Amino acid sequence: MSRVRIHNFSVSLDGFGTGEGQTLEEPFGHAGTRLHQWFFPTRTFRGLGEPQDDPGGSTGVDDAFASGWDRGIGAEIMGRNKFGPQRGPWADHEWKGWWGDNPPFHTPVFVLTHHPRPPIEMEGGTTFHFVDVGPAEALRVAQEAAGGLDVRIGGGPSTVKEFLAADLVDYMHVAIVPIVLGRGERLWDGLEGLETQFDMQSANSPSGVTHLTFSRR
Amino acid sequence: MSRVRIHNFSVSLDGFGTGEGQTLEEPFGHAGTRLHQWFFPTRTFRGLGEPQDDPGGSTGVDDAFASGWDRGIGAEIMGRNKFGPQRGPWADHEWKGWWGDNPPFHTPVFVLTHHPRPPIEMEGGTTFHFVDVGPAEALRVAQEAAGGLDVRIGGGPSTVKEFLAADLVDYMHVAIVPIVLGRGERLWDGLEGLETQFDMQSANSPSGVTHLTFSRR
Repeated sequence: MSRVRIHNFSVSLDGFGTGEGQTLEEPFGHAGTRLHQWFFPTRTFRGLGEPQDDPGGSTGVDDAFASGWDRGIGAEIMGRNKFGPQRGPWADHEWKGWWGDNPPFHTPVFVLTHHPRPPIEMEGGTTFHFVDVGPAEALRVAQEAAGGLDVRIGGGPSTVKEFLAADLVDYMHVAIVPIVLGRGERLWDGLEGLETQFDMQSANSPSGVTHLTFSRR
Repeated sequence: MSRVRIHNFSVSLDGFGTGEGQTLEEPFGHAGTRLHQWFFPTRTFRGLGEPQDDPGGSTGVDDAFASGWDRGIGAEIMGRNKFGPQRGPWADHEWKGWWGDNPPFHTPVFVLTHHPRPPIEMEGGTTFHFVDVGPAEALRVAQEAAGGLDVRIGGGPSTVKEFLAADLVDYMHVAIVPIVLGRGERLWDGLEGLETQFDMQSANSPSGVTHLTFSRR
């Protein structure tokens, strides 16, 4: 049974999954890299780039959580703001995401947008498809593309929120980062009572991050 | 050196320190008792009432955090909404707080209100003083009354926020409760960058709660 999963989704203490003011230089706006400092030293993050013999990196608590992100995943769904900083009709057709020629997804990736465009085939198995559909239909298409494997909801906050609100998520890993961002896009808004749908557990990391797992009851 | 401390302050995942719609029956509004379920089984909570030989209760992780709340405390400052559900001029002068004849504070308690009234002396050493002053002046008065001991900021969220915003807090213990309240009063609003003023650590409890400590750098 294909599951719908969310991994490595970082939020601040005040529940922001990204900061204010996304730009080409600052994908997470004024949050900068602060929401993901726990992730960068991990072996998982170090291994995301070009294949190499030994990526190095930490293999402790943070990596234990980080490393599950691609296991058994056959497709990703992401919001347009995760794909890039452009809004409205596509002005820059050269933009192919933040991740270089060989993005770390290595599967079909469905980008939710009101401005569909032809797919972009990248190196390494990643193809970006641009679809103007709601969460249930996006999931149907992604599951078909995933060939029986799981589908990952890749973010950002509004996309994650949308799938949670539609009760389409089987598993979610959230990393609570001990910073107060103050502004940006909140994860939890509109999800009152979410805990009743999930078994939740938590674990602390020496990095200061608290990892939460949400497993559908 | 007298310190300013906050203990056992519970917030939901979405950062609410209390729910919406406080009434006489529901001090925390629609949150009910959900923010404090972790606290009730502890030996500390069980021992808050009338003195008894053995209060019973758990002595695990939650109690380790809960138990520090009254050690070395000489006075408390609380917001008016922690004292009771009345707003505006005092209509019911019989109301003496939620805690019965012998409140668990056993020290002077300064209630911040725009409607001062004569103090109320309770059994067991608690006296409620009603003061119409800002945080710095409230702290000055409370520290004087505390006779060199520490001052606890007792809540609710707006009072805690006010003292944090004024940079008057030396220590804070927050319990993050894995529920999404959706509405109520937020703790973190207006405190962007709070983490830069504190060393923070966290610990999980089997109850599902994550305890955070904030220690002034």
